[in-house]
Order: sequence, then C-alpha cells, then structure tokens
Amino acid sequence: MAIDPDAGDLALIDRYWRAANYLSVGQIYLMDNPLLREPLKAEHVKPRLLGHWGTTPGLNFIYAHLNRIIRARDADVLYICGPGHGGPGMVANTYLEGTYSQVYPEIGEDEAGLKALFRQFSFPGGIPSHAAPETPGSIHEGGELGYALVHAYGAAFDNPDLVVACVVGDGEAETGPLAAAWHSNKFLSPVSDGTVLPILHLNGYKIANPTVLARLPDEELAHLFTGYGYDPIFVEGHESQAMHRDMAAALDTAFDRIAAIRAAAKDEPARRPRWPMIVLRSPKGWTGPKEVDGKVVENHWRSHQVPVSECRTNVAHRDILEAWMRSYDPEDLFDADGRLKPELRALAPMGARRMGASPHANGGVLRKELRTPDATAYAVAVERPGAAEAQATKVLGDYLRDVIRLNAAERNFRVFGPDETASNRLSSVFEVADRVWMAETLPTDDHLAPEGRVMEVLSEHLCQGWLEGYLLTGRHGFFSCYEAFIHIVDSMFNQHAKWLKVARELPWRKPVSSLNYLLTSHVWRQDHNGFSHQDPGFIDLVANKGSDIVRVYLPPDANTLLWVGDHCLKTWNRINVIVAGKQPAPQWLTMDEATSHCEAGLGIWDWAGTEEGLGPDIVMACAGDVPTLETLAAVDLLRRALPHLRIRVVNVVDLMALQSPQHHPHGVSDEDFDRIFTRDRPVVFAHHGYPYLIHRLVYKRANHPNFHVRGFVEEGTTTTPFDMTVMNKLDRYHLAIEAIERLPALAERKPDLIAALKAKLDAHHAYVREHGEDMPEVHDWKWPYARQ
Amino acid sequence: MAIDPDAGDLALIDRYWRAANYLSVGQIYLMDNPLLREPLKAEHVKPRLLGHWGTTPGLNFIYAHLNRIIRARDADVLYICGPGHGGPGMVANTYLEGTYSQVYPEIGEDEAGLKALFRQFSFPGGIPSHAAPETPGSIHEGGELGYALVHAYGAAFDNPDLVVACVVGDGEAETGPLAAAWHSNKFLSPVSDGTVLPILHLNGYKIANPTVLARLPDEELAHLFTGYGYDPIFVEGHESQAMHRDMAAALDTAFDRIAAIRAAAKDEPARRPRWPMIVLRSPKGWTGPKEVDGKVVENHWRSHQVPVSECRTNVAHRDILEAWMRSYDPEDLFDADGRLKPELRALAPMGARRMGASPHANGGVLRKELRTPDATAYAVAVERPGAAEAQATKVLGDYLRDVIRLNAAERNFRVFGPDETASNRLSSVFEVADRVWMAETLPTDDHLAPEGRVMEVLSEHLCQGWLEGYLLTGRHGFFSCYEAFIHIVDSMFNQHAKWLKVARELPWRKPVSSLNYLLTSHVWRQDHNGFSHQDPGFIDLVANKGSDIVRVYLPPDANTLLWVGDHCLKTWNRINVIVAGKQPAPQWLTMDEATSHCEAGLGIWDWAGTEEGLGPDIVMACAGDVPTLETLAAVDLLRRALPHLRIRVVNVVDLMALQSPQHHPHGVSDEDFDRIFTRDRPVVFAHHGYPYLIHRLVYKRANHPNFHVRGFVEEGTTTTPFDMTVMNKLDRYHLAIEAIERLPALAERKPDLIAALKAKLDAHHAYVREHGEDMPEVHDWKWPYARQ
Repeated sequence: MAIDPDAGDLALIDRYWRAANYLSVGQIYLMDNPLLREPLKAEHVKPRLLGHWGTTPGLNFIYAHLNRIIRARDADVLYICGPGHGGPGMVANTYLEGTYSQVYPEIGEDEAGLKALFRQFSFPGGIPSHAAPETPGSIHEGGELGYALVHAYGAAFDNPDLVVACVVGDGEAETGPLAAAWHSNKFLSPVSDGTVLPILHLNGYKIANPTVLARLPDEELAHLFTGYGYDPIFVEGHESQAMHRDMAAALDTAFDRIAAIRAAAKDEPARRPRWPMIVLRSPKGWTGPKEVDGKVVENHWRSHQVPVSECRTNVAHRDILEAWMRSYDPEDLFDADGRLKPELRALAPMGARRMGASPHANGGVLRKELRTPDATAYAVAVERPGAAEAQATKVLGDYLRDVIRLNAAERNFRVFGPDETASNRLSSVFEVADRVWMAETLPTDDHLAPEGRVMEVLSEHLCQGWLEGYLLTGRHGFFSCYEAFIHIVDSMFNQHAKWLKVARELPWRKPVSSLNYLLTSHVWRQDHNGFSHQDPGFIDLVANKGSDIVRVYLPPDANTLLWVGDHCLKTWNRINVIVAGKQPAPQWLTMDEATSHCEAGLGIWDWAGTEEGLGPDIVMACAGDVPTLETLAAVDLLRRALPHLRIRVVNVVDLMALQSPQHHPHGVSDEDFDRIFTRDRPVVFAHHGYPYLIHRLVYKRANHPNFHVRGFVEEGTTTTPFDMTVMNKLDRYHLAIEAIERLPALAERKPDLIAALKAKLDAHHAYVREHGEDMPEVHDWKWPYARQ
Repeated sequence: MAIDPDAGDLALIDRYWRAANYLSVGQIYLMDNPLLREPLKAEHVKPRLLGHWGTTPGLNFIYAHLNRIIRARDADVLYICGPGHGGPGMVANTYLEGTYSQVYPEIGEDEAGLKALFRQFSFPGGIPSHAAPETPGSIHEGGELGYALVHAYGAAFDNPDLVVACVVGDGEAETGPLAAAWHSNKFLSPVSDGTVLPILHLNGYKIANPTVLARLPDEELAHLFTGYGYDPIFVEGHESQAMHRDMAAALDTAFDRIAAIRAAAKDEPARRPRWPMIVLRSPKGWTGPKEVDGKVVENHWRSHQVPVSECRTNVAHRDILEAWMRSYDPEDLFDADGRLKPELRALAPMGARRMGASPHANGGVLRKELRTPDATAYAVAVERPGAAEAQATKVLGDYLRDVIRLNAAERNFRVFGPDETASNRLSSVFEVADRVWMAETLPTDDHLAPEGRVMEVLSEHLCQGWLEGYLLTGRHGFFSCYEAFIHIVDSMFNQHAKWLKVARELPWRKPVSSLNYLLTSHVWRQDHNGFSHQDPGFIDLVANKGSDIVRVYLPPDANTLLWVGDHCLKTWNRINVIVAGKQPAPQWLTMDEATSHCEAGLGIWDWAGTEEGLGPDIVMACAGDVPTLETLAAVDLLRRALPHLRIRVVNVVDLMALQSPQHHPHGVSDEDFDRIFTRDRPVVFAHHGYPYLIHRLVYKRANHPNFHVRGFVEEGTTTTPFDMTVMNKLDRYHLAIEAIERLPALAERKPDLIAALKAKLDAHHAYVREHGEDMPEVHDWKWPYARQ
C-alpha cells in the first residue's frame, strides 16, 4: 500500500533538499562568505574550481527521501553512492544530519563550520570529490565506476535487517561489472540476507555524451530490468513538487513490497522474489544554471563538472553563481548562527539511523574476530623432506571447512570464487556449507541452496566486489581464483588498496578484515588450458601498492600454505595474496618447520644444502611450489655430479621479506639478507612469476649483481607440467647448468657435465613429443636424501 | 518468411554434425586408430586426457547449420566461438570443410591426416584446446571468457556485407564485459556496418555449477533480451531431428529479419532496429555418455571436460569411449581413405565462404595501409626550449582529425574512448566525424549520428574489445583512455598480447595493425579527481609482455607526441602505449629535434646541461612530461646556485630503449648506454610511473648502482599539480636536493643551499594550503636559457 505523504511534509523535504544543494554548490565554489551574508566577491570564490555538480542534486534528492522513509519505518538503511564525484552531496547530507561534525569536530554546525566545510572540498589539504573513505557513511568511493551494485550486495549478505539503497549512475551503468551485478539477486536469500534497493539514476549524461540507458524508452528499460529479475518503479520529471510526491510514493511502494517479500519468504525461502527497484529520471545539474554563455547547461552534459567556471574573473559568471546559490534561499534554511533550522534538522533520522552514522559503513566497529581452528591439526605428516605427497589447496580446504563451521552461528565468513572452488580443490567446504543459489534448481544439482557460505559465479568482478562489500561492512572472506584471471580485477584491487590506505589514516575508521586471495591453478600447471591461462603478473601489480597494505606469499607446500592461510585470515586492513598449486606435489616441511620458516619469511634449508657450515660456493634460491621442486631436483643433480660443491638452498615464502626494511615492514635487515644470500656468491633464483619482480625487490642488496633469476618469460602452451618449466628455462636441467656456469672455474673443468645436462633436455624434448607425457626419471623423481 | 528445409537436407546435416562430433571426441582422446578400424586399445588413447567435451557438440551443431544458411543465401559469415575450450569443435569443422588441410598440409584429408589431427590436440608440440590463433577462422581465443560479443561487434563495424555469428556461452554470459556487450547494438549502423547474430548457447553448466541464465525461465530471458534491444528466437530440446528442424527454421527467420532490417534501414538509417538473436538450449555434452560410474554426465557439468577419464587403465571406461565414438557411425561418415564422404563434403560452403577460410578471420590479408598526413605539418613552433606552450594531446587531435579525413573513403579507421575523447582534448576529430550513436537523440546533442568514426561508451572493456575485433579483421584504430582506468582492461591486454605473440609465429597469419593506446589525464594531473584516479602502473604490466610485442612511449611534449603517434599508427602486430598529458605545458623540442630524439628513443639534451663537453658531475634524467618539467626546473635551480656544477640532462621517450638489447630490440647497446648515463656518475632519474620499473629495466647496466629513481609512490589526493609532485618527492626542490646530496663533497660544503631548498618546500606547503593554488614562482616558472 502506497502512502501519500502530506504536502506539508513534502514542502519540508524540498527545503531540506535545497539545503543540501546549497551546501553542495558552496563546497564546489566558495572559500568564504558561506551564507552569502554579503554580495559575492571574487575573493570568496576558490581560485581553482574542482568539483562535479551534475550528479549531485539527484543524489541529494534521493538522500532526503531516504531520510523520510527511514524515519517513517525505523528502517536501517545504508546509502551506496555509485556516481563518481558524488562527494559534495554526501558530505552535505552527512553534515546536515549532524554526523559530519561529530566525526570532524573542527567542522562545526555554525557559520565558521560552513566556511571550513566549503573550503576543504577539493582543496589542498582537504577532502576529495568522491564519496571517499573520509566521507562518513560511505563504503564506496565511486571514483572508478561500475562497482556500486556489487558492493551493495556484498553489504547486504547476512544482514537481514539492512536495506542497502544503491544509487547507480547511468554512466557507470554502461560498465561491464555493473551490467553483470544486476544478476546478484540470484544470490541473495530473502530470509537470511538483507535487501538491495537499486535506484538507477538516469540524469541523461556522462562527461560529454548522453548515456545509453537514458536514451532507451521506458518500455525497453522495463523489459530489461524485468529480465534482470526486478520489479521497476519509474519516477520521472523535473518539476520538484511532482517529483517529491512521486519519489515518496515510489519509496513507499518499494518498502511495502520489500516487507511483503520478506513475509512471504518465511514460507517459501527458495522462491526467488522479484525485488523492487526505482528508475529515477531527473535532469543532470537539476536546479543549477539553465544556460551559461548562451549554451544549455541544466539537463545537459555541460553541467557535469563546474557549470559556470570563471567566477573569479568574469562578473557575469559570478552573478550567475550568486543567483543560483540564492535561489535556494539560504535564510530560509539556516539560522543566524549558520545552523540548519530545527524543523529541517528534525527531518533527519537520529543516532545510528542516520545514513552517515551507519555502523555498517564503518564495518570495523561491527567486526567480530574470526574463530579459527588450530591450523597444526591439519598438517601433513612429513617424515623426511619429499617423502609425503599432498595437494596443498586440498589441505587448506579442510581448514577452511572448519573455519566455516566455527563461524556458522555468526554468519560472518564466506568463500568466493568464479566457479572454481571445486576445481581449486577446496571441496571440503561443501561438507558444511552450500553454494548460494536462488535461481531454479534441479534434482541433479550439487550443494545449491538459498543459503550457504560459498559464492560462485563466473565473474571475477562480482566475486571481488561482493567480497569487498562484505569486508567493508565488518565481515570476513576468502577469494580463490585462477591465477591468470585475477588480472580481471586488477583495477578493483587498486581501488580497494587505495581505500584501505586512506581508511587506515583515519582514526575513526576501525580496521576491517583483510582481503585474502588464494591464486591457484597457477601458471606452471595449465596442462588443460595452455597459454591463455598463463600469467603470474598479479603479484607485480600488488607489489606496486603501499607496503602497509600488501603481502605476497608463495608457500612451497601444504604445511606452509596452512600457516600462511591461517595467518592471513587473522590480519586486518591488508590485502594478502597467496599463490599455491592444487596438484599432488611433494611435501618438504613438517608443521613445526613450516611455522618457523613462514614466521621468518625466508630461510636457508640446511637439509637440502651441502655447505656443512663452511659457507656455500653457490646459492640456489626459490620461491613458489614448482620452482622449489625444480630447484631441489637441480640440487640433487648437482650433488650427484659434484659431491664437493657446496650448495646452499634458500626458500622464500614471504616475497616482501626480500625488500629492504625501509621499503617494506617485512623486509629482512641487510645483515640478515647478506647472511642468507651471502655478499658475493652467485645466486640462481627460481621464481614463480616474472623474473623482474625479484630484481626490483632486491636491487638495493649488496649481492644483487650476482642474482640470476629465472621465472615465467611468456613461453607456454598446452603441454606437460615439466615441459612448461623447460620452455621457460626454469627446469632442473637449466637451473643446474646455470649453477655450474656461474662458477666459471668449475664450468671450464666440467664441459662434459654441462653437455650431459643439455642432452637430458634433448631427450626430454624427444620423449615428450613422442609419448605426450614426461620422462619417468622426471615424473617419478623424488628427493633422495634423509634429513641431515 | 521462414523456409522449412526438407527432411533429407536435415538428415545430411545430422550426419555432418556427427562427423564433427566424432572428430572432436577423437581429438580429445585418441593418438592412434582414428577411424576405429580395430577395437580400441589402451595404447590408442592419449596418456594425458586434456580437453573439454561439454561445449563442443553445441558448437558443432551451430556450425553445421550456419554452413547450410551460408550456402542457401550465399552469406558471408564469420564464426566467433565464445565458449572456452571450443577448440576441438572449431578444428573439426575447419578440417571437414577442407580449410584445415589447406592451411596445414601436414594434416591431410585421409586416415594419416586424421591420426595427426587427433594426436596434435592438447599434446606437447601440438595445438591448444581453445579456438586459438592456430585455429583457422578464429579471431577469438575464448580462453578468458567474456569478450566474444564485443569482438563480434568490432568485426562487424564497417563490414556491411558481413554477418558475425557469435556463439555466447552461458558461462561467459555471467561476466561483466559480456553483460555490457549486449548494448553494442546501440552503436551499430544498419546501413554501413555488418550484422551481429548472437547465439546464446545455454547448455546449462559451467565447470561445476549450473549457469545463471540457463536457470531463468524463458519468459524472463525474453524480457532481458528484449530489454537489451534484441528479438530473441528460442530453440530448445535434445532430440536431434526436432532440433535440426527448429535450428534451421530459426536461422531462416533470423536471416529473413536481417534482410528486412537492412532493406528498411535504407529509408530510415537512424532508426535502431531490433536485431534477431537466437537462444539455443541444448544439453551440455550432448550425444556424449549418459552416465559414467553411476553418475549422470550428459546434460550435467560432469561433461565439462573429459566425461570418461580412465580410458587407458579402466576397460569399462574404454568401452564407454568406444561405444560413444561408434555411436556416430564413422563408416557412414568417412570413406575407405578416411576422407569425408562427398555428399557430406558438399554441405560445406566453398572457397572463402567457408567460415574457416574467411579473410575477415585473417585480417592482415584484408588490411590496407593507413593513409597518414605529414606529421611535421602539425608541429608546434618552438623558438627556444620552453618558449612555447601547448596541449600535447590537442596537437595530436589535429593530426588524428586528418587521419580520419584521409581514410574516410576506406572506412577503416576508428577512434575509441570511454566518453573521454573531448576530455582528453582530441575534439578536433569532431570536425570531420561524429560519434556513433543509434539510441535516441535530442536537438541539443553534439555530434551524435548513426555513422561516425568515434566510438564512445563508458566501458573500457567495450572500447578495448571493439577495437580488438576491428584490428583483427584488418582495420586500424586508436584508443584514448584515462591512465588510471586502463587497468580495467589489463587482462584483455594480456590476452591480446598473447594472441599477437602466437599469431606472429604463424606464417599464414598476415600482420594486423597495432593496438595503440594514448593514456592521458595521467597520474600527475588529477586536479579534479584525486587519489582514485592516480595509477601509472599499466606500463609495468605491459613491460612484462614479450619484447616483440610491446612498446612504451613517454613523449615529453607535443612534437615528440606527434612523432610517436604517427609512428605507432604505421606499425603492425604490436601494442603501443603512449602516455602524455593534456594540460597546457611548455614545449621543449622543435619538430626536427623531436624526430631525432624519438628515433634514438633517448638522448642527452645538450641545451639544458652545463657540461660543455667536459663530462658531467651528475646526470639528471627524466621520462614523461611532468617529470621532464620538474627536472628542468631543478636544473635551473642548480645552475643558478651552483654555476660550476656540470650537469647532464637525459630524456627518455622510448622506455624500452633502457633495456639491454638482449631483452628488447629497442634497447640501446651497453656502449651507448654508458656513454649517455656514464659508468660512474650519480643519476637522478625522474620517472612518470612507479620508480621500480626503471630499476628493472636498467639493472643490467654498469651504472645501475648509481641510479636514484623518483616516481609515483602512491601518495596523492585532490590537490594542485605541483603539490602532487611534492607529495611524491618528484618536484624540482626534491630533485635538486637529491642531486646535491648524491655529490657528498658538494653537499658537505652547501648545507645552506639544501636548507634553502627545504625552506622552499615549507613555503610551498604553507602557500598552497592558504591559497589553494601554487606559488607564482612555481606556477610561472619558465626555462630561462637560450639554446647554447
């Protein structure tokens, strides 16, 4: 049943909206005279006008109406501001409702506060133009477009009492991630999850073009959103009185339908409801200047940024600005002290119901520690190095299963993946949790249910975005993905890292759980898939981000993966990237050894080397499971052929340990680095990824000139696992040859040995092309030595 | 009008389909006994079964029916195979139609050829499992999912006689890029572009889950695709006779509607038609084993890869395989020599009408050289360094305008951008070309038309994918994008680079034009946007790719940008990345100087240095426009304060020139490098991007230990341009201080100078926070020296 709010209420809402618009324009333009107590002068205007008006009046309109419905229904609403540059509106509204001054007491609710509020916006030392971490009530910056809706769904999961009102701009609605995100409603339980109320805001224009969706007829839009599974409600126009009436009615209708859906879902939890959404067509730059210099501005892309731009130097422009600001009638909105008038202030909700004060938007305050089992209980028994075989991710899967179990009652942990949870050998989680699925099911389906802990969809964008929304609202998660395809979310990763960097610097933002990636089905084991699935470069991207934020782990076996996975789940405000294989592989370390090794981040594997305390002739270093295997196999070849050669084996788990401590907090000291890698011995380093990464991490170290790094050099196809290493010259034979050649006196005396190793490569080539599998001596190789 | 093909035709098509299915299974499983002349033995089966059956029968079904309609209507059809791992089907079909043996004569049309065909698939030394570059008729690998439809549209632009039949898998249909790509129909002219016929293939499952779209009711799907602007035709079932009948009728209907649309468009070219599409619901793994080991396989995700897996060791499994292959009745399909029977061979189109032989799929054969104007005609006059000011991208825009003009008749050049062509100052192109737009228009719109040369949509994915499709079918293009957001297409870039690497190694694939990026609105000038828009890391990603493929240019001013832009447009089989600013900036080089400098890739700017042939005390190096400006301003500070200091200025345009020649063909020799950068002098290097990139490029050079690189270190927000450089310590004061401190004897004697420079930084901080703009002495600084 739609409620028709009375006209008096709507007149108040209109005034509230005008106040928000006034404050938005003030932020973009003014550095003084905030209440226009005197005629506007050049020096009141900022010298550099940086801000975006176009989207703002619509955002303010929606905010005001959400305030009404929150108060009317005591609703718990989180506002996601999708459009870029929505900052002025979000700041204005959180200021009007009192949140802003609570969070930032230096911006008080008076004229001085208004002046400071205006001045700080897009001003050196001030705040950005987006709904950034600095903005109370925000979990979504909107600087890069397309992720509003997927963040909204992430916030709604496991928050059954929450309504996430998500404003989707018609610019961002053209992006791929947004276009896919509409289907998130197939993954939302009407019983145990919250509600997402999308508000598609069609203001018609992006930077310099109309938007696609705004230029479709309503009938086509209705088909589109019905097809996406929604029940669209249209609100269209520009006349404010009619628009207030229609928007109020639309929100009443939407909230009525939501209530009805929730009531019905108790009986039929698996029936996918047709959730309401609102399509709001309103002019871009609504209530702004109609025309500037003879050109249409309101309801045109020309209102996108600063509609009238030369307000310091051009009196006519300044007059337009002043008339525009006075059109909101500030005396009618603010009292003599510059405080919002009480009848308007009364329109905002109270306390935590204010959208700027929602605890969900500062998830750290809601976050509960994740319960984790004792990781050592899952350890693989390793009697001696190489004696046991295990699938590392399978072992981690058992651990994750019990993490799910331990936190089942809290409902605050989910596992995400692009249809790869089973493929990545994490199937144990299905012993305790289903995959979330609200579309049709068939009797032959496997662990699909309206409620579950595992989110699978063939979109890395959706996995990443859901997880971000889930974490930022105070929960925990784990994302497993094929290594090559995590690049799909490079830019989302960047934006999340930037969010965390800024959020960490704000004392009022409490820590959120880390974003944890497990990258598996990695570059070295793409037997089924070949070259298109081979790319280990995500960690290069990650390494560019601030050292406070990122960690990269390359555990060489199951027990080290267990330690790393357990560790990462217990951290906060970070992005942890773990790369580990899923195939059966030899195990090197006991759980105790794994623990010490991982705590150090890197270390000498005495049991594998031959230096006997005398110092090495050569260092064989490795990072990653396959490089570790090939390095140890190379060491075996060398030990057999050159029993007097003194070899040191170094393994690196925590890649950031290689960096100098001034570059990364995990970086080992130069003394330790020199002790481990020596200051002058050749280091043959077998690296999981692109070799350059190691060089850039160690270039400040004394022994860097002696580092010879092998890794993935973009050679690959569908072939055997060992052949992949040969193609990239990371295999045991190439490593052994390189070790010898880096010791010139030895190389000169052992041409036959080098020739024999090269002959092995020839034999491999012939064998693999004949038989389609690796030579038994490669395939069946095992580390033959006991612990020393 | 739908034509009902007679039953005899359909029976033949069914046999043709069986032949393709037989060859597909054979590729996945067999290395010998290809025609099952003898009972299947263990040794006939490949030791490692790598391949994907699930999607294949549907792809084969579609291919056979497209063959029918091509012959019936003499249609020119390009087949885009979206689903991953469609390789067996595409290879089988191009083999059946004779293309494969033409391209690869070693795979003949006889029993030996069949054996070789089977053996090579997913076998060391053989071919990958996707519709890779090795696959005739393919422009789309499908290894990473989601780009089929956007590639299809790119292929269709400016190809009015072409029908691009695009099979979209229901897995990839969950991805963001695919979800957005449906809207490409708002950018396709029914007069001057070709047709895209999407065939959404709902086989129901991905790797281990049902697919979202397959689990929506038809009614909802009909809404969705009507909303996307299509006219869907449903074909559903599993009974082959009925399915052949329905599919033939659906294609007849679709082609009738296409013809009607094209006829009508002549009168109403701006009216957006409702293009047909086909929704094909057929079982995953159709015609494969129904059950294996008691578990459902056909019509289930278990048929995704290898439905029956232990065929070498498990007799029951081998029996299933043999029965499955014999169910296609090979004797009924192939003659005694192993050649496809003539009545079946007659079903395939002839010559270039065969989809495997489409010249559009080997675009290099259709490619015509781009006509380019004389770039020097656009040169900015630079009387002396720093005397002129220009907007570099604006100058390039004038040049691009004339490229469009010169190639207007050929209609083979387009400019792509995510709503940023004007923002990136390339507006001159609108003097000669419109933006393509088939949605509604209004009188206030600006340069929107059904036909045009400029493609703008707020999706980097669509821009990139359209351009890739356009280039791979033999045309030319240019993509301008905000630097930070090009990361959105990191993974698409990776896939395109991989495609080019493999395609270059295939002699039958002719060169295609390079993919050219202009990254502007770059990290140093985000005055409006702040931290979320600051990321120069795309070039790091690019540098990881094979050196044959990638080039990175950082032109310091307009004339160097002109040279670089002109050069890139004339190259082929590469990915060129150009980073350049759009803001007014000082100009350094005349066109002649720019030409020599760019041809060398890097060089000493004698006019800026003070060494007078005596060799430098210090090298001030720079790459990128803002770093160059700050370096020269630092040099000015040093020249004033330290008239006896001998400074060398080095500018780098072509970043790959820094690499060793064994790592990149553009790398300068060690002799030249040492001559330019010296072997022992400190180098203060101001770099556009993350500083590590320079280290990894030069780590092999003799003077690397003396390189001190400054660049973007993830510090930023909305502030003044100069303050951005200060935050990242790339500004003139920090650079000058570093130069002095790298000369310890000098630093010891000049503590006052260092203190004075630091005081400038303090003054800057105070000024910018007070006034909101940069100090006049910074803002108005100009290079004060005449040429020497």
